[in-house]
Amino acid sequence: MNAVKVGLLGLGTVGGGTATVLLRNADEIQRRVGRAIEISHVAGLGIAEQTIVDAATTKLTEDAFEVVNDPEVSIVVELIGGYTLAKDLVMKAIENGKHVVTANKALIATHGSEIFKAATEKGVSVSYEAAVAGGIPIIKAMREGLAANRIQWIAGIINGTGNFILTEMRDKGRDFDDVLKEAQELGYAEADPTFDVEGIDAAHKLTILASLAFGIELQFDQCYTEGISKITTDDVVYAQELGYSIKHLGITRKTENGIELRVHPTLIPKKRLIANVDGVMNAVLVQGDAVGPTLYYGAGAGAEPTASAVVADIIDTVRTIDAPVEYKVPMLGFQAGSMSSEPVMAIEEIETACYLRMTAMDKPGVLAEVSEVFAKHNISIEAVTQKEPAQGEDNVHLVLLTQIVKESNMSTAIKEVENFDEIIGSIARIRVEQLG
Amino acid sequence: MNAVKVGLLGLGTVGGGTATVLLRNADEIQRRVGRAIEISHVAGLGIAEQTIVDAATTKLTEDAFEVVNDPEVSIVVELIGGYTLAKDLVMKAIENGKHVVTANKALIATHGSEIFKAATEKGVSVSYEAAVAGGIPIIKAMREGLAANRIQWIAGIINGTGNFILTEMRDKGRDFDDVLKEAQELGYAEADPTFDVEGIDAAHKLTILASLAFGIELQFDQCYTEGISKITTDDVVYAQELGYSIKHLGITRKTENGIELRVHPTLIPKKRLIANVDGVMNAVLVQGDAVGPTLYYGAGAGAEPTASAVVADIIDTVRTIDAPVEYKVPMLGFQAGSMSSEPVMAIEEIETACYLRMTAMDKPGVLAEVSEVFAKHNISIEAVTQKEPAQGEDNVHLVLLTQIVKESNMSTAIKEVENFDEIIGSIARIRVEQLG
Repeated sequence: MNAVKVGLLGLGTVGGGTATVLLRNADEIQRRVGRAIEISHVAGLGIAEQTIVDAATTKLTEDAFEVVNDPEVSIVVELIGGYTLAKDLVMKAIENGKHVVTANKALIATHGSEIFKAATEKGVSVSYEAAVAGGIPIIKAMREGLAANRIQWIAGIINGTGNFILTEMRDKGRDFDDVLKEAQELGYAEADPTFDVEGIDAAHKLTILASLAFGIELQFDQCYTEGISKITTDDVVYAQELGYSIKHLGITRKTENGIELRVHPTLIPKKRLIANVDGVMNAVLVQGDAVGPTLYYGAGAGAEPTASAVVADIIDTVRTIDAPVEYKVPMLGFQAGSMSSEPVMAIEEIETACYLRMTAMDKPGVLAEVSEVFAKHNISIEAVTQKEPAQGEDNVHLVLLTQIVKESNMSTAIKEVENFDEIIGSIARIRVEQLG
Repeated sequence: MNAVKVGLLGLGTVGGGTATVLLRNADEIQRRVGRAIEISHVAGLGIAEQTIVDAATTKLTEDAFEVVNDPEVSIVVELIGGYTLAKDLVMKAIENGKHVVTANKALIATHGSEIFKAATEKGVSVSYEAAVAGGIPIIKAMREGLAANRIQWIAGIINGTGNFILTEMRDKGRDFDDVLKEAQELGYAEADPTFDVEGIDAAHKLTILASLAFGIELQFDQCYTEGISKITTDDVVYAQELGYSIKHLGITRKTENGIELRVHPTLIPKKRLIANVDGVMNAVLVQGDAVGPTLYYGAGAGAEPTASAVVADIIDTVRTIDAPVEYKVPMLGFQAGSMSSEPVMAIEEIETACYLRMTAMDKPGVLAEVSEVFAKHNISIEAVTQKEPAQGEDNVHLVLLTQIVKESNMSTAIKEVENFDEIIGSIARIRVEQLG
């Protein structure tokens, strides 16, 4: 069979990695797929300087639309990122009848519905394995490997930068700003780290996982998102003492009242396997009704790990490149006519246990007052610890673990306690999940 | 579209689980696959007593060949196990033009080549996700998710019974026989536990993983297999003190000299994620050249976890049920004409670090003599510990960690040392892998 011609948009970190893997493993890939895959056209800024693909056989351009409009190209691989240009290119590629592979989580989470609709009408596929958890084949596991299951919940460490920061804080007692600076120097975190540390990147990925799990539309704007920038080294230490690790998790769960969709720092028992996923590594824990818990672990970012997923998508696309659509796995795992309209719940409606840390004057009776407020709101306290004041300080830390409580009740109680004269500043709340 | 009719062979643990999951999740599965899947014919011993499928709509028989010869059945699901009858049924199903799904690791590992050849000639598929690591979609990850990679090595905890025993030995200081007895009572281990504790079951699974990783023929007879029945509680304790856990691993690795294919107890660093996979759970760690390490974790056995994989295969089969073969993933992941003839290495050729435990008379000079033998064979010792004799005993335990050494050298040195008068009985050797 003829070689399949691929056009790459972007030759940066992931684009370069993709070209490298396609070229280096061309023989092995051909042994698997039965035909050659050729990089026929590449667009990138400063493309004349590139040394990855052979300019004698691959067309090079700075204009990505040239690739998208190239009649020879069958598969367009979008690795530019962002929402605007990337969306125009992907939509144009679809219009031109080309299959698309993308690593762009922001694009899929925010414009996926429109893109998939256009692709379905045109009879082409849009694949995005690399958009969630980098090299881990989690999209394939969700859409195919676990297709027998009703998925009950997912909890994922799906941002490597955040996990690196929390791991360093725990292992070395360093504070957030210090580690963030190092992460930026190491190239793990962007100059503007907001997407990573405030949970937006994780929310993009979780939005996609939730659709794959429950067959709901992509609803990034409904995702509750809370970052890790307020986690202190005290919190990390106190959590450890209580038998927990703090991880920045994306959690989606099907409940009787709707779908939970939330990204936030979370205390999880240290003994869980996912609590031992450290550094920049990612892991996704999926609970299915038949299979029980399964976990998928690997590198969530980086040139070649991401390329591994991109190229897997290219291989899948090549395998069924001219097959009728009914032979293909639907883009969100469920048939277009079978999507569920189950609502995403507001965060106020969610129920979780909570870890609370408050600074209190070291006076008798404070704990009794606090406890009274909690009792009034039907919040059971599972554990209380008073931490001795640091040298030269008069105030103590009170650390509480509550039983499962409705978010809105907890918020009301926190506000009331914060009004006490004996409580200094605001109360830190971190949700607790057993994941058992 | 019409419902696809499935025939089940076997309604025991896995067969019952498969029927239960197909029936319970029928709506969800139809949302995914776009058509109904119907259990139209079931064979099992004492089938008249079954209460899982509706006898009004499903044909029941004690003769499995009735199902295989039923012209209405499109997919035959073999869940009987064993090599003999199962093979005849699978071959007959293929001859009758039916697709096959099986959970039978022994059958695939020993007769897979013949079965796949017949299926390819007939244009039907044979799927076996449940044959390795139960509910974990590891076959799909190897064949598709990681298809961009040259796989470098795999290390798997792929027998839950063995992992349960080693976990109990470590956590509770119990000895092997004691835990094995409990495992049998709990139904984790068979009355004849040989397949599980001697590594035969793991070797079946590893044989399959090696073919998927490297595109080599299935070569169960070339797999080196060593069980866990000689591991003592002393070994477990000493390993912990050295920073290691003992796990029963299946390991396959591509080297310059051929393919390693071996199942044996292994010391691995406690800090590795896979060292924290405990109890009956399975995990497979895969190292690819692009993606780096990825790990897949879940239940390796049990009715519904195994059914999860069986039903995923049924769904995959339904999706492309009348598709030409070129649209399908090859049964071993590589095109039939692209299999490699790279040889599997004899265990004597393998190189690993080793843990050695020997009982020695408590006399000066013994360690010097032992060290001399090792030096003569170019074996570097990384650590030596002498364990004080237990109360009332005169002999000590010497525990050594070697650097990486060729297996045959190690064996020769061990034999020489065992001949010393001061060394009592035989020397325990456990291979060490860093998995880093």
